[in-house]
Amino acid sequence: MKANIITIGDEILIGQIIDTNSGYIAKNLNSIGIAVDKMFSCSDEKAEIIETLDFALKHADIVFITGGLCPTNDDITKTTLCEYFNSNLILDSQILDFIKKRYDSIGVNFTENNQNQALIPDNAKIFKNEIGSAQCMMFSKDKKIIFSLPGVPVEMIHIFDNELFPYLKENYSNDSIKFKNLLIVDISESALAEKIKNWENSLPEFLKVAYLPSYGYLKLRISCYNTDKKNYEILENKFNEVKEIISDKIISEEDISIEELLGKLLKEENATISTAESCTGGKIASMLTSVPGSSEYFKGSVVAYDNEVKTNVLNVDEECLKKYGAVSLDTVEKMAVGVKNLLKTDFSIATSGIAGPTGGTSEKPVGTVCISVATKENVYIGKFFFNSNRTANILRAANLGIIKLIKILIYEKIKR
Amino acid sequence: MKANIITIGDEILIGQIIDTNSGYIAKNLNSIGIAVDKMFSCSDEKAEIIETLDFALKHADIVFITGGLCPTNDDITKTTLCEYFNSNLILDSQILDFIKKRYDSIGVNFTENNQNQALIPDNAKIFKNEIGSAQCMMFSKDKKIIFSLPGVPVEMIHIFDNELFPYLKENYSNDSIKFKNLLIVDISESALAEKIKNWENSLPEFLKVAYLPSYGYLKLRISCYNTDKKNYEILENKFNEVKEIISDKIISEEDISIEELLGKLLKEENATISTAESCTGGKIASMLTSVPGSSEYFKGSVVAYDNEVKTNVLNVDEECLKKYGAVSLDTVEKMAVGVKNLLKTDFSIATSGIAGPTGGTSEKPVGTVCISVATKENVYIGKFFFNSNRTANILRAANLGIIKLIKILIYEKIKR
Repeated sequence: MKANIITIGDEILIGQIIDTNSGYIAKNLNSIGIAVDKMFSCSDEKAEIIETLDFALKHADIVFITGGLCPTNDDITKTTLCEYFNSNLILDSQILDFIKKRYDSIGVNFTENNQNQALIPDNAKIFKNEIGSAQCMMFSKDKKIIFSLPGVPVEMIHIFDNELFPYLKENYSNDSIKFKNLLIVDISESALAEKIKNWENSLPEFLKVAYLPSYGYLKLRISCYNTDKKNYEILENKFNEVKEIISDKIISEEDISIEELLGKLLKEENATISTAESCTGGKIASMLTSVPGSSEYFKGSVVAYDNEVKTNVLNVDEECLKKYGAVSLDTVEKMAVGVKNLLKTDFSIATSGIAGPTGGTSEKPVGTVCISVATKENVYIGKFFFNSNRTANILRAANLGIIKLIKILIYEKIKR
Repeated sequence: MKANIITIGDEILIGQIIDTNSGYIAKNLNSIGIAVDKMFSCSDEKAEIIETLDFALKHADIVFITGGLCPTNDDITKTTLCEYFNSNLILDSQILDFIKKRYDSIGVNFTENNQNQALIPDNAKIFKNEIGSAQCMMFSKDKKIIFSLPGVPVEMIHIFDNELFPYLKENYSNDSIKFKNLLIVDISESALAEKIKNWENSLPEFLKVAYLPSYGYLKLRISCYNTDKKNYEILENKFNEVKEIISDKIISEEDISIEELLGKLLKEENATISTAESCTGGKIASMLTSVPGSSEYFKGSVVAYDNEVKTNVLNVDEECLKKYGAVSLDTVEKMAVGVKNLLKTDFSIATSGIAGPTGGTSEKPVGTVCISVATKENVYIGKFFFNSNRTANILRAANLGIIKLIKILIYEKIKR
């Protein structure tokens, strides 16, 4: 069973918006054994939509379309699909009522445009949108099925999670894809490839390896595309083999983000954390609090962009700042200790660096970052040179701070 | 002149990674008059790559390919392209030297795998990668050109900005696309569409309007696809017309993010800002500091996730927390004043809310958010019910805090 995903919208093609919907749908489809083998983005033009849909239907059993369902004139997905599937639009009074009531409750005026959102193709199954006005439609043609979903991510996700996914699971889920994941640190992609070369060459056809490098860590994924039970056993054996080769570099076997992993480890310890951030500017705090339930272990953060904040709030002495500068091991150590004491937490992460594009010197070029992690007993410090652009320097610094604490927590767990 | 963009990589198709490269390339191409009319993602399979490339070359004059150039076994883009374009691979000793030196300088072992990165197709033009080992290759076929770029975003962007874009600008730039943008607040997408309906209906064929809704604001884009100078005049006139209809809702005419806009306004005022964040967990600080040069106006932030931090650091009195709760107008107002005093800034933004998925009550359901903005003279407060998921609730709260301050700064500017 193969799926294709089409994103419709000029805003994608001019680079004004990044498509996150396709990835969300793909991840969920894979989890129930439906592989996605192509994704497309095309413009809000009838001919383009039809050509793309034709091409997708040649390859796939299921096609997901997102976007182009807003009530505004530039959006033509619904009318185009009605033409494609020979549908007539009929006013659904129940949906009309629902939209009217919803608009009332959030204090938005109901306009003529919105009435069009209650026009439903007579040969489509509808999956209701409870948090917006664009409905999800399912068409079918030559034993293939086509879903059209709104493009606004929060609405798309809401319908997908609550309506579509349960339906797909019941009707189309199978066991044909299995993944194994490893979260790996302290080794480059090419050094890892070299290290596991023999193992990789020993893999049978149906097992595929992928390297997914991120800033400061990488994921290794083994995919098994076969429904045979014996093959799953081989997958398990091969997975155990590679785990042994790089055992000291693995921090998790789950397909999990580093901020989720840190959260799990802190919860296991019943421990709390705070951050003191200069160059990362709140990025670590924002990553940690993106995890539901993070209030159990995350107490807060001081973003000390200005040196005055470092001295007045975090208690870094002015002498230290004058002598070593803000971007120094001495300063970042004092920031970590300062925030840990101020917010009364068990652990803390601190960063100070030059994110760029300006502010570098010959001694401390753009990309110089100092990181510190304070625990109950110790304070760890490290200095790095990242040599990237602002966005990457910030992300890499945030990731390395989080990973350092993860490694400490895992090491302490093993020691016990 | 039309371009297509292809992303190669299983990690995209299983939803493990979101493709940001295509958007980056598209945005830059549009700025020099090259329109992108299709984007594709396909897997690391030879047949898939060839089929997608065939389809793209039917439509486009230029095709950009990203991904699949890592030295690991799963990546096959280079060998596939060599087969497609009848190339022989030849070892380039200069590139080999460069890669070896680079690996030395960052302390990574040079492996056999890396040597392959210096194998170059004999009929391709090379654009050098100064921060990695995968080179950018340009092939040509039947008067069409094809670029293959590494998939790691920071490397792709580095090559594109420094090597490719100057080359494209010199050889292919033209004046055939013009955009006008409006950043709009305080009106829903459908209400806006209703309000400017007559204007929209009056537009000639070559002017297109797009609505780009975000959390708390929306962008309206008018595109002009025509090289005629007279048409540009009509674009200007029509742009002025729509500006007059919704003049009180426009906060910028630039294609700019709200955090960039706030930064510009603060710089104009020579003013400083701080944030006190509960439910947004550092998101506002992270957004503000993502802007280069933000240290000129951003002094810092206190992320007060735990109530203890609200009282001990931000000086919110316990009485207030007990009586009204953390998510209340009284508390958020005191947070805004507290951080403004503590970090000695001219302005501050504070948030407190229930991001979800749990923690809601019947009185304060998930999505309840209180926002406060403190200025030199006043403190503004507001309570909202967002009714979305955690990610969207956090982003919406962050955006609304930033927009509130933008509106205050613009209003005060007009007053003078």
